[in-house]
Amino acid sequence: MAASRMVADEFESKALTGNPLGDPAARNTWIYLPPGYDDSTERYPVIYLLAGFTGTGRTFLNQHPWEEDIQQRMDRLIETGQCRPMLLVMPDGFTRYGGSQYIDSDATGRYQQYLLEIVHRVDAGFRTRAGRAFRAIAGKSSGGFGAMTAAMDHPEVFGLVADHSGDKGFDKVYGEDLRRLPDVLAGIDVAAALADPYAFAPKSEPFMQLMGAAAMAAAYSPNRTSPLGFDWPVDPYTGEVRRRVWRRWLAHDPIHRLADRAESLRSLRFLYMDCGNRDEYSIHLGCRIMDRELTQLGIRHRYEEFNGGHRDTRHRYDVSFAALSAAMPG
Amino acid sequence: MAASRMVADEFESKALTGNPLGDPAARNTWIYLPPGYDDSTERYPVIYLLAGFTGTGRTFLNQHPWEEDIQQRMDRLIETGQCRPMLLVMPDGFTRYGGSQYIDSDATGRYQQYLLEIVHRVDAGFRTRAGRAFRAIAGKSSGGFGAMTAAMDHPEVFGLVADHSGDKGFDKVYGEDLRRLPDVLAGIDVAAALADPYAFAPKSEPFMQLMGAAAMAAAYSPNRTSPLGFDWPVDPYTGEVRRRVWRRWLAHDPIHRLADRAESLRSLRFLYMDCGNRDEYSIHLGCRIMDRELTQLGIRHRYEEFNGGHRDTRHRYDVSFAALSAAMPG
Amino acid sequence: MAASRMVADEFESKALTGNPLGDPAARNTWIYLPPGYDDSTERYPVIYLLAGFTGTGRTFLNQHPWEEDIQQRMDRLIETGQCRPMLLVMPDGFTRYGGSQYIDSDATGRYQQYLLEIVHRVDAGFRTRAGRAFRAIAGKSSGGFGAMTAAMDHPEVFGLVADHSGDKGFDKVYGEDLRRLPDVLAGIDVAAALADPYAFAPKSEPFMQLMGAAAMAAAYSPNRTSPLGFDWPVDPYTGEVRRRVWRRWLAHDPIHRLADRAESLRSLRFLYMDCGNRDEYSIHLGCRIMDRELTQLGIRHRYEEFNGGHRDTRHRYDVSFAALSAAMPG
Amino acid sequence: MAASRMVADEFESKALTGNPLGDPAARNTWIYLPPGYDDSTERYPVIYLLAGFTGTGRTFLNQHPWEEDIQQRMDRLIETGQCRPMLLVMPDGFTRYGGSQYIDSDATGRYQQYLLEIVHRVDAGFRTRAGRAFRAIAGKSSGGFGAMTAAMDHPEVFGLVADHSGDKGFDKVYGEDLRRLPDVLAGIDVAAALADPYAFAPKSEPFMQLMGAAAMAAAYSPNRTSPLGFDWPVDPYTGEVRRRVWRRWLAHDPIHRLADRAESLRSLRFLYMDCGNRDEYSIHLGCRIMDRELTQLGIRHRYEEFNGGHRDTRHRYDVSFAALSAAMPG
Repeated sequence: MAASRMVADEFESKALTGNPLGDPAARNTWIYLPPGYDDSTERYPVIYLLAGFTGTGRTFLNQHPWEEDIQQRMDRLIETGQCRPMLLVMPDGFTRYGGSQYIDSDATGRYQQYLLEIVHRVDAGFRTRAGRAFRAIAGKSSGGFGAMTAAMDHPEVFGLVADHSGDKGFDKVYGEDLRRLPDVLAGIDVAAALADPYAFAPKSEPFMQLMGAAAMAAAYSPNRTSPLGFDWPVDPYTGEVRRRVWRRWLAHDPIHRLADRAESLRSLRFLYMDCGNRDEYSIHLGCRIMDRELTQLGIRHRYEEFNGGHRDTRHRYDVSFAALSAAMPG
Repeated sequence: MAASRMVADEFESKALTGNPLGDPAARNTWIYLPPGYDDSTERYPVIYLLAGFTGTGRTFLNQHPWEEDIQQRMDRLIETGQCRPMLLVMPDGFTRYGGSQYIDSDATGRYQQYLLEIVHRVDAGFRTRAGRAFRAIAGKSSGGFGAMTAAMDHPEVFGLVADHSGDKGFDKVYGEDLRRLPDVLAGIDVAAALADPYAFAPKSEPFMQLMGAAAMAAAYSPNRTSPLGFDWPVDPYTGEVRRRVWRRWLAHDPIHRLADRAESLRSLRFLYMDCGNRDEYSIHLGCRIMDRELTQLGIRHRYEEFNGGHRDTRHRYDVSFAALSAAMPG
Repeated sequence: MAASRMVADEFESKALTGNPLGDPAARNTWIYLPPGYDDSTERYPVIYLLAGFTGTGRTFLNQHPWEEDIQQRMDRLIETGQCRPMLLVMPDGFTRYGGSQYIDSDATGRYQQYLLEIVHRVDAGFRTRAGRAFRAIAGKSSGGFGAMTAAMDHPEVFGLVADHSGDKGFDKVYGEDLRRLPDVLAGIDVAAALADPYAFAPKSEPFMQLMGAAAMAAAYSPNRTSPLGFDWPVDPYTGEVRRRVWRRWLAHDPIHRLADRAESLRSLRFLYMDCGNRDEYSIHLGCRIMDRELTQLGIRHRYEEFNGGHRDTRHRYDVSFAALSAAMPG
Repeated sequence: MAASRMVADEFESKALTGNPLGDPAARNTWIYLPPGYDDSTERYPVIYLLAGFTGTGRTFLNQHPWEEDIQQRMDRLIETGQCRPMLLVMPDGFTRYGGSQYIDSDATGRYQQYLLEIVHRVDAGFRTRAGRAFRAIAGKSSGGFGAMTAAMDHPEVFGLVADHSGDKGFDKVYGEDLRRLPDVLAGIDVAAALADPYAFAPKSEPFMQLMGAAAMAAAYSPNRTSPLGFDWPVDPYTGEVRRRVWRRWLAHDPIHRLADRAESLRSLRFLYMDCGNRDEYSIHLGCRIMDRELTQLGIRHRYEEFNGGHRDTRHRYDVSFAALSAAMPG
């Protein structure tokens, strides 16, 4: 039987053409084709897998010592029967600021639209089982947020979701970074860093904090009339919360959207969440709220809190991929 | 001329008798008597100096390498003419949880009342200039908060105030600790630590975080009907803000009290604030707001932001003591 | 002109067959073929590029945000004329303990021999300029050590060397880790971690410290009669240096080998070293000694100390690759 | 019965008069007089208690939250019968660099001589049991080193010793600081800091590291012909160990002195050592060696390794004081 293989599918995205940050519209989507794909005519389920902040689809191919890469992991899960043969599709949602949160924004581009574009292209170019019952979306951290958001917005496209440590409970996730923002802004050449983060050196802690804050502001509170293209949700000198801007952020918080999107989530075949019980961004606290609210709304789901933090959680894909596979029709 | 000396004045406080935590009502107040006090009949101005969280009046006598203690510092300031001869009065506002914030609370005791009791006793027992024009209150961190609060509440008693890095802008000061609170509560024997912090070992980081949160909750949101004697301002499992409780906290935030207490502050002879520009608790951000609001209200004050953080700021007493001295009547 | 491309050349190594740790003998060598390689008959110089501890050749392909991977970097250097078109050959010297230091050891395998095997294979399979004047060896950290060691041992093979932050001055580089070793050994299941580091979880700080110490001991002080296959250079309970073992380590320290290998180094066309001036392992101190000794021995070389530490130094390849290119015959 | 009290005994030391650093020769010794001292004619045993680096006798009076000071601790130990009524004598061995290690040095002064001077003065001025069987010396960290050294040098004076986490195994204790020394020296105004550490600001981490290294070098390798008054044991640019200087340091290492001073130690009534099993300076490793060597030499002693690090070990005085008390004649 033919071995699995990784394919880089590059195409010029319509959704990203002319995006405000001038980021490339032509990007690679990395696709895992399972063992046997090449010598069969079978059609396969698909998991769309979204990388976290600063990552891209290709990041899943990075080698870490003593660890499988995504291809080796999936090969093993399929070989041991934990997971049925499936495609993994890994998009590139990177922006000049480090990431798009996989949503549409006037400041960065139409990244959720781009996800849908990829779905159409994958269904057209590969032998997939093209219904929502066989199409899952998953991710970690910002990728978990993007997955949950896509499932809320487009349950007709994605019938299953796995959200690993995904941003939610924004007051906690972003609270510490926003508290520090005035100090960060005062200690770095903001204009230079935002204009060309590639050239900016060193990629210090303040640089990373600035990029994280800018990426979130560009995603959640774009403003074409602002010089930066977005609004900071806190005053850069006093740190005072700008309620009007902050409400725009909260409008993206999965917890805040839950009531409105209950029907979407209820329609899913499977909703999976997990988080480390010592998540550095307190995302486990947001998950606990979401878990409780889902239960109160009578929305079936599975929530697991594992022993650990926000990093080194790749082993959790073993759990979610198996669960997604099992939840698809027989 | 007689040298300066330190006096420990112990007395049984009426305000603290029968306090809810069972903390001692008999306490030492440490008093600095300036050079010449013992061989004159002169009367002297007084600065009431409040220690930060976990400190007491006696903490000012602690020796730190390469540094003056409070007596040596004051001797030098007087000798060099930066400060006129004055008394320093250093009360003990400690509680079983590490500190009272120097306010009255059903959960800890009547600590602001205790401050007033000390003022009466000092004026009776020492040769002070007993008017508000010669009576300042000062402190650092929780002590700065206590000083500012006392000046807001009793401008008829304290005519001058110096607030060093004092708690204000509560969402920032306490934000990170409250975000972490569910993790802290889950990882420590809360009942044992609160019942006998003296015996609790080790005095680990989580212990210190628990004590800090408990002390603030006991000060700001006491509740006699609660088993702990106070309410946590966040849900211990999800970290969700309990708005009703949090509003009780905010009612103590100097920034929130400012409009109501504008007349008090306007009546002061002198209002001094300073803070490090990298304060780990972002107290400089609160100070910037307070500075702006004071200006908008037309309240004369002096605000200095110095290069540094929340710790090792004792050298700032040189600035504030001199300024308080200069602001008293000639 | 054909674009550059990356080739994974897998072959079963004779040198590694039957290696003591049971690590695979069949491995990928990653090879960068420059633009134009595929549509010419030209022969090209080669830089052998060795990854640091826990890395492999493939690690150079990892994606880091806002950064080029090795292919993009080399493309740019060639396109801008900073570097002539060359091959990059990136071997895999990984072992079960995280790395071989690219030397022959009874405890791990014949990894320097493996490097030479790769050279033969590359010269046979690719259009290289096969003389030493066109064959450089380079690397960072453990890879810098491996490069310098290979140049000392086989100057007839490698005519140029670039050592970035390479281990030297072993008392400093390894001093802190060995001081901590008794505590590490007391706090982890050593047998389990060494037997199957892949399965060991979590990959905590103590795990990484154990692996680092074990990898170095396996490289420098193998001992077939010891249960572990190697000797610790310090007593596991008291940390006392075992001089007999430690001398075996020092025999590999480039500084200690310098006098003996002076002729080898003198025969090189080019010897390049650099290091950050705040290297966390104090490798800059070893470099300063080496720089002085090379000068005293009249060995031409170039040493640069740049502003930075041990991490995030990939930008230094721009400097060394250009210098290696310029130092090759016209 | 009269309560215990603390006495500050200031006198002009002959040993310290004209000391090379110009530090004061007139200093306070703090003395604890046990309950009942003032209304009896009894004579009492004495424990000389030496503070750690940067501390003085007075530091034992510092107040730490939720903790006894030395007077309260001793009162309790006596009241509960764990310890017989005794004097505690707490000398001031501070120097401009932070501490003298309580030894005689051409660079700092005759601080061991000063200890003996204090013994004579205490025996003359207070009702002590003046024989060595009733005279113990104890301390923590640098104070533990000073105590052990005094017991080795003057067993005719001190018949019992308690060494808490005392410097020994110098390659480990000082190894990391000396490795960092070139970086520290390169990053601070050394001349300014050494000339007037009191004025130097801020008292940053590099300042503290410089002071620690300078204090040890001044104690162990004084050199009147050097501009600094002492020799660094490592080259300030390369970190290379200067063996001639380092041997002078090692001559003070209790482990290295052990064989020579075996008779002194064998003559002691009681020799106590303890250390935390996670001591940040690896002093537990030195203690393990010392424990083994003492056993091999047949020298009776007690060694305890407790769960903890180098800090917050005051609770260990409960153990050592009780043991010293029990080991004195009935």
